[in-house]
Amino acid sequence: MRLASWQAEPRQKILTWLNRVTDDQSSDFVPVNDRIAVFDNDGTLWPEQPFPNQLVFTIDMLKAQWKDHPEWAKNKIYSDLVNGNMEVLKSMGMKELVALLQDTHNSRTEDEFNASVRNWADTATNKKFERRYIDLVYQPMLELLDVLREHDFETFIVSGGGADFMRVWAEEKYGIPPYQVIGSYGEVKYEVVDGKPVLSKVPGNLYIDDKGGKPQAIHRFIGKKPIFAAGNSDGDQAMLQYTSSSNYRSFCMLLRHTDAEREFAYEKHTASGHLETALVEADEKGWLVVDMKNDFKQVFPAK
Amino acid sequence: MRLASWQAEPRQKILTWLNRVTDDQSSDFVPVNDRIAVFDNDGTLWPEQPFPNQLVFTIDMLKAQWKDHPEWAKNKIYSDLVNGNMEVLKSMGMKELVALLQDTHNSRTEDEFNASVRNWADTATNKKFERRYIDLVYQPMLELLDVLREHDFETFIVSGGGADFMRVWAEEKYGIPPYQVIGSYGEVKYEVVDGKPVLSKVPGNLYIDDKGGKPQAIHRFIGKKPIFAAGNSDGDQAMLQYTSSSNYRSFCMLLRHTDAEREFAYEKHTASGHLETALVEADEKGWLVVDMKNDFKQVFPAK
Repeated sequence: MRLASWQAEPRQKILTWLNRVTDDQSSDFVPVNDRIAVFDNDGTLWPEQPFPNQLVFTIDMLKAQWKDHPEWAKNKIYSDLVNGNMEVLKSMGMKELVALLQDTHNSRTEDEFNASVRNWADTATNKKFERRYIDLVYQPMLELLDVLREHDFETFIVSGGGADFMRVWAEEKYGIPPYQVIGSYGEVKYEVVDGKPVLSKVPGNLYIDDKGGKPQAIHRFIGKKPIFAAGNSDGDQAMLQYTSSSNYRSFCMLLRHTDAEREFAYEKHTASGHLETALVEADEKGWLVVDMKNDFKQVFPAK
Repeated sequence: MRLASWQAEPRQKILTWLNRVTDDQSSDFVPVNDRIAVFDNDGTLWPEQPFPNQLVFTIDMLKAQWKDHPEWAKNKIYSDLVNGNMEVLKSMGMKELVALLQDTHNSRTEDEFNASVRNWADTATNKKFERRYIDLVYQPMLELLDVLREHDFETFIVSGGGADFMRVWAEEKYGIPPYQVIGSYGEVKYEVVDGKPVLSKVPGNLYIDDKGGKPQAIHRFIGKKPIFAAGNSDGDQAMLQYTSSSNYRSFCMLLRHTDAEREFAYEKHTASGHLETALVEADEKGWLVVDMKNDFKQVFPAK
């Protein structure tokens, strides 16, 4: 059965729309070339609590590079993090977070950075679930990606997370190739060193793919308005708004995290995944609101 | 016959490589996911003489918006251009060219800009060839795009031209969807105006997708190193260099414009399409050098 991990009601809503836009006898028919679907990643395709997985990778990077950066010891946040005090993450502002990301991710070649992420993806394990982070992707959303692609949709990630971080494992976990992974990104420098072309990550010009930045990035990277969008937070609201302004019959979806037992329960009072105004707009515009506890038969893929 | 408009020698070189990288019994086999091909546009997929086609569109925009911008009359270059003096283009520097592009392309919504390009694409006609500009794409290169896609390649444009300009017609002319068209690009602004989401082109942060900017953009938009690249000028050299540094057996191609009769003959002494150092590197690295006059049986598609 298609969308087997979904309860009947949301499954039916998704499939009804999908039949309408792909049936060439329907007045809502959408040509194949215009079937673009966009998904937020953190909290939409995989968990983002108690903090986004990329921060786990970032702290691994902090530890791995610690010896080469004696100046980091003077930074209270960095030494707290490297000593396993994760509470400090909750008190960090955007500016400090960006500095941490740039310090740990930059001045590395494309190949070195990819190898670091590869190593993290292969080994880093979530203690609560006793599984690798990259195996903890939402089973119902994998099925949704599949059913869209079966209907000739192109599926894109549009995430606040780093594009370079996601691209290393997104193809194997989601079936989404790197050129359909849009995320936050910084500058790279091109040089020929000893006859060999090298791309290196360098500080500066950080693009934050969140809020209004999401439709802007969709324009820059995709160049077409999507007709399907899924998100879970106010950071996704502009992307859903933009999608729902399509001239075609579009479909927008918000995922509510309501399952403390199988995943996490959070909404308004959280740094990552804050959901409040988008829920009001979902109600006004009739976007599908998915309640994880009640609408997902299963959360993660079987072991 | 595959690559029917190519003479036997270059055709054989392309097909031999293609068989090697797609035969799973070959030591040069490349998995489908890594089959990425990149093409420059101006001078590689369509002509760029006596000046790039986007300038023809730009002057159309200048004329269309002339009445709304009385201040433009004070600009000698702009009034020359609007009066049909195309010679002035040759004396323009990069700074003046960028200003012209920004002045004519900006402060327009996504939909308005796309409609302007659509109108230009549907109507603008090249006087030398007595055909629409968008119909004057190189027949042998269309066949090359096709044969690559038949072998499960993803084909991308990586051009110094504007992404938003090319995306309007690239899908119908090249079979390349907007999200596989990489070009120069500027900023867009996202707003909700009277309840409607609007993206508008605004000045600032122009990214020039040329020279070292090409591998940088490949990293940003594709996230994988290509194994095939085609270009025609020194502006494509870094892209070809980067491609030829692949761990796979890659294929790079430079197109020489040698056919004054059927197209144009130019090389070193031209503003757009200057070819000099890339030709030296092609010789050193064994890239295929295609001579349009001798290697193309046919230049443009049949009418």
